[in-house]
Amino acid sequence: MDTTFARYDMGTAAEEELKGLGTGFQVIRRTVPGVKDLPVACKRLIEEESCDLAMALGMLGPHAVDKQTALVADLGLQGVQLATNTPILGVFVYEEEAKDEDELAWLAARRTREHARNAYNMLFRPETLRQNAGTGQREGFDDVGPLETTSGKLS
Amino acid sequence: MDTTFARYDMGTAAEEELKGLGTGFQVIRRTVPGVKDLPVACKRLIEEESCDLAMALGMLGPHAVDKQTALVADLGLQGVQLATNTPILGVFVYEEEAKDEDELAWLAARRTREHARNAYNMLFRPETLRQNAGTGQREGFDDVGPLETTSGKLS
Amino acid sequence: MDTTFARYDMGTAAEEELKGLGTGFQVIRRTVPGVKDLPVACKRLIEEESCDLAMALGMLGPHAVDKQTALVADLGLQGVQLATNTPILGVFVYEEEAKDEDELAWLAARRTREHARNAYNMLFRPETLRQNAGTGQREGFDDVGPLETTSGKLS
Amino acid sequence: MDTTFARYDMGTAAEEELKGLGTGFQVIRRTVPGVKDLPVACKRLIEEESCDLAMALGMLGPHAVDKQTALVADLGLQGVQLATNTPILGVFVYEEEAKDEDELAWLAARRTREHARNAYNMLFRPETLRQNAGTGQREGFDDVGPLETTSGKLS
Amino acid sequence: MDTTFARYDMGTAAEEELKGLGTGFQVIRRTVPGVKDLPVACKRLIEEESCDLAMALGMLGPHAVDKQTALVADLGLQGVQLATNTPILGVFVYEEEAKDEDELAWLAARRTREHARNAYNMLFRPETLRQNAGTGQREGFDDVGPLETTSGKLS
Repeated sequence: MDTTFARYDMGTAAEEELKGLGTGFQVIRRTVPGVKDLPVACKRLIEEESCDLAMALGMLGPHAVDKQTALVADLGLQGVQLATNTPILGVFVYEEEAKDEDELAWLAARRTREHARNAYNMLFRPETLRQNAGTGQREGFDDVGPLETTSGKLS
Repeated sequence: MDTTFARYDMGTAAEEELKGLGTGFQVIRRTVPGVKDLPVACKRLIEEESCDLAMALGMLGPHAVDKQTALVADLGLQGVQLATNTPILGVFVYEEEAKDEDELAWLAARRTREHARNAYNMLFRPETLRQNAGTGQREGFDDVGPLETTSGKLS
Repeated sequence: MDTTFARYDMGTAAEEELKGLGTGFQVIRRTVPGVKDLPVACKRLIEEESCDLAMALGMLGPHAVDKQTALVADLGLQGVQLATNTPILGVFVYEEEAKDEDELAWLAARRTREHARNAYNMLFRPETLRQNAGTGQREGFDDVGPLETTSGKLS
Repeated sequence: MDTTFARYDMGTAAEEELKGLGTGFQVIRRTVPGVKDLPVACKRLIEEESCDLAMALGMLGPHAVDKQTALVADLGLQGVQLATNTPILGVFVYEEEAKDEDELAWLAARRTREHARNAYNMLFRPETLRQNAGTGQREGFDDVGPLETTSGKLS
Repeated sequence: MDTTFARYDMGTAAEEELKGLGTGFQVIRRTVPGVKDLPVACKRLIEEESCDLAMALGMLGPHAVDKQTALVADLGLQGVQLATNTPILGVFVYEEEAKDEDELAWLAARRTREHARNAYNMLFRPETLRQNAGTGQREGFDDVGPLETTSGKLS
């Protein structure tokens, strides 16, 4: 699922990445106007097309109202996940995360592709996620990595 | 669905635009006092009048409390969409988006009309939305257009 | 539905106004401690007493926490409306809207009465709301009126 | 329902107050770690123990994140009330409401006890709440009282 | 349930602590990318694996958007708890709570372990929670302890 609002074709990046990861699964794509239109569209994909997982791809402007838009979309996506018992990976890029338009395009591409890998792993390679538990993975910019370890045992 | 609170007759603009786009569909209009009254009214239109899509048209004042009002209305609209598996295009105009009253009227008209086209495309021309994926479409003010492309391929 | 928290007897104002508008309908009143207690009480009125519409009347203090209280109450009211397919007019008055206690009392009275008329119109005179679509109606303070018109037609 | 996070034994205050108000009803108490654990615990009390009303007692720290915690808990409590058609009185005390620790303890005690009376009245004496409609009742600190009256009649 | 986003292996700390507390119960662990992916994953654990309680472990960055992410995740967790009548202990650590990376690791470990004890007590030793009601327990940093007592009796 992607949007006409976004300034980068995140849907094509996701499709490309997923196709490079394996076969034996099918990708269905839909495009809606903006991120608040994603939840119900994801729900229909899951219920009517029997998708096992959805990716919700969107880009958001730099204003306070855009944060609220993201909140509404995100809460809608939670509602869909709980109603369908199906995971949805929300991949949102905020304009102010990048220092210029080139970095914004790069960030949208990278985050989408890294989350496409997460999607693949959630369905087919859950042990990969397990191995990366608590290791500070980030999607888009560099991973921050794990902290020095400490057991923190209670007395 | 529109409101008596709004200062521009968004409902008539939507009706006019939709009628110009084609025939073979029916437009049902209802008016409620304010944007928080839109969700349940949309739900009844969808459930009792079998609408395939709803447009929720509203205008919001410039105060912090108006942002909260929009949030409540927007979350209500999410709830309706998920309960009915039917898309609702929320078309909200904020008073502070425009520099004066003339621009505000123009913005309300344009955003409504462009979303009326989105509504039409969602139902009858989904391929049009697909072609515009990631192209920076905006409703009301000018489209911002797509970013320079980059593949962002992962190693 | 009104509250013991409010400093003006909004429930009596609503009852009085409704009784002046017509006969042939019945008004049932309940009082709860605060605005967050309104949603479930409205739901029971609607479900157990078969009300066709509810008014939720409350007054809110001037602090940030009061905004959050209003948000919780408002979201609860949305939940009730969507669960029952029944409209609820939320009539909330914020202490800081008025310049002094006299104006606050006046505002609580007027907003309640104007929303009582909205309630009546929603049930019995929907064409009145339709005629006022986009005309900048306000409840309490003066209406702001419609903007100069513009068609905003798309090319 | 109370929490181990709170710094005052609000549950005991509520039990004591309720027992002083009458007999013929039963009080069931549960303790959870923090306020976000209250909603599901209240839901189980209502559904599994057939409670007619629940009190959710909690204390909150002075930081921004504590406001968000209260919001989450409050929205959860709304969800429970609407799912069960049973009222829950949320009794939350914010650390910054009191000028020192002594006042905080006093406030927690008083607010809990006054809401215990509200709980009693909601179940057994609804006419008491009705008589106090719009009279500016506050739980904890002093009541603020009603405003000077005005009819605010519409022309 | 833990995440690949976190920088400390909270899941292993929880498992270790729970295993030290007793036998006669089984711990099932899953890892997802980020905190917003926890709710649906918890729901599936509860519904498909018949878990009696879930712990949702996550770490959050220091930015405003991270607060919103936590809110979305938290509201999702409320939704799951109410849909399943099963408690979920959310264990979230915010980067800015700690003065440096060492303390952050320590805090993640301690909070996880103390909440693992809460989880154990909720299921097997509810009287322990009851004894600690209103005693100012904190998870991670030191308990703040109870306030001086006062009865706050109403006249």
